[in-house]
Amino acid sequence: MPDPSPGLGGRLEGGAHFLPVRIYFEDTDFSGVVYHGSYVRFLERGRTEFLRSVGIGHDGLARGAHGERLAFAVRRMGIEFLKPARIDDIVEVETRPKALTGARCILAQAIRRGREVLVTAEVTVALINDAGRARRWPDAIRQTILRASAPA
Amino acid sequence: MPDPSPGLGGRLEGGAHFLPVRIYFEDTDFSGVVYHGSYVRFLERGRTEFLRSVGIGHDGLARGAHGERLAFAVRRMGIEFLKPARIDDIVEVETRPKALTGARCILAQAIRRGREVLVTAEVTVALINDAGRARRWPDAIRQTILRASAPA
Amino acid sequence: MPDPSPGLGGRLEGGAHFLPVRIYFEDTDFSGVVYHGSYVRFLERGRTEFLRSVGIGHDGLARGAHGERLAFAVRRMGIEFLKPARIDDIVEVETRPKALTGARCILAQAIRRGREVLVTAEVTVALINDAGRARRWPDAIRQTILRASAPA
Amino acid sequence: MPDPSPGLGGRLEGGAHFLPVRIYFEDTDFSGVVYHGSYVRFLERGRTEFLRSVGIGHDGLARGAHGERLAFAVRRMGIEFLKPARIDDIVEVETRPKALTGARCILAQAIRRGREVLVTAEVTVALINDAGRARRWPDAIRQTILRASAPA
Repeated sequence: MPDPSPGLGGRLEGGAHFLPVRIYFEDTDFSGVVYHGSYVRFLERGRTEFLRSVGIGHDGLARGAHGERLAFAVRRMGIEFLKPARIDDIVEVETRPKALTGARCILAQAIRRGREVLVTAEVTVALINDAGRARRWPDAIRQTILRASAPA
Repeated sequence: MPDPSPGLGGRLEGGAHFLPVRIYFEDTDFSGVVYHGSYVRFLERGRTEFLRSVGIGHDGLARGAHGERLAFAVRRMGIEFLKPARIDDIVEVETRPKALTGARCILAQAIRRGREVLVTAEVTVALINDAGRARRWPDAIRQTILRASAPA
Repeated sequence: MPDPSPGLGGRLEGGAHFLPVRIYFEDTDFSGVVYHGSYVRFLERGRTEFLRSVGIGHDGLARGAHGERLAFAVRRMGIEFLKPARIDDIVEVETRPKALTGARCILAQAIRRGREVLVTAEVTVALINDAGRARRWPDAIRQTILRASAPA
Repeated sequence: MPDPSPGLGGRLEGGAHFLPVRIYFEDTDFSGVVYHGSYVRFLERGRTEFLRSVGIGHDGLARGAHGERLAFAVRRMGIEFLKPARIDDIVEVETRPKALTGARCILAQAIRRGREVLVTAEVTVALINDAGRARRWPDAIRQTILRASAPA
């Protein structure tokens, strides 16, 4: 089935992935701006769409596309909240692979509104199996991520 | 293990269950009051604690405590939003079983701040198996709910 | 500024608005499918994008674009949950104005995956001022909604 | 009004605050355990209840209890996700003030299930005014936090 919503998944460009995200009521809090925890959700959407754009889907991993059943798990996250986003804004989530060791992938992420940087983050992700144990990244996934993150 | 937090699960009284809920940043939106979708989460907490208070836990159902693996699924929900809750409020979720047929349970719920009614809801819940098909309520669960909802 | 993300806001077609929504980790729960409360957030996104597509933004209302400061508030909601959505799905939210009285607007909404209807909802929305009191819909907003909902 | 739910706000003990939190459907994701973003919400609940336990409420700050209208804003957050929590668990959020400079407060936080440490975090919080600018912490708030964090 062709993707009915071509713009929904963002785009790969220069070794990074860019995903537009609209700010809705659900993302804000009574201080009038976006709730800090909402950015954590946006960052996850960015990582998911980055992976999907290079052919890696959560559903496939969970069904065992690479041998045993696998899922991504966030191990560590450092976030700086620089400026707030507001209702009705469109922000853009940048996701850039930074390092890929045997069992972990470190991603540098940023959330911008136009040229303003609102949030920066460094996120360490592992692949775990059903028992919750970290697994080496399958070579196919590793190669795919390395290829995507090489600036053309 | 004794429950380390006796007040956390609310109380059964007069055929209904009452759960106190604190309003946090995460529950509000930029309009300054609680986001309407947050009440839907509070209602679910109320139903879960009602069931737990009579001995029915999601984890046990999912592990097959009543034969096959089962989970609760909401089938229908009607909600009236009468007055808003605000940051720092403590509200109370009332959950009262209203009807229990072969495959469905209808619960009447309300959210109050003191004596003010903020939200009322009628929620229809089914028990489904792993394949997503509705199952008859096991007799043990049915009897437990009926006993709990009989005003002493 | 031109909209940098033309596909993000969905489309108006035949008197209704259609918004594609991707299912992420954040939308699911441990039962393996989408959490029932997540559909309530998707419905709100659909209403917001319907209003934006006809020129009505939350930010403008809150700043007093129609006289006093106004915000939309959900008064009543009836939802049927028919089939579950799953991680990685793209679903589409349909929003169709159904009735518009002095102070309330009733919208018929549905969430579909391809041709399958997953959720249907009827939602009553009011416009409230800073004090939380319902206001008559400004004529400009009323005319805009009526025009949008007239099948061409 | 006496607090109708004495256990809801946790307890101060040995220079730190401890808040019990129940895991609900809303907190989990399709991987079967708690969604990583949910811990960010739990940590905020812990900070809020710590502040409330020493007499500082968001509502009072927002109304100008200390001169101008103020709100807490998270500036930086570092989190380690060590082990997952699961549906029906009760976890405990520990919040311990670590440093308090002119404009920032650093808190060390942890989430435990029994004696197991699931999550650790270091969170930097600022006080901002309506315009979003960081303000010095009012002396009354500063003294209150320092007193609370001094082990008896």
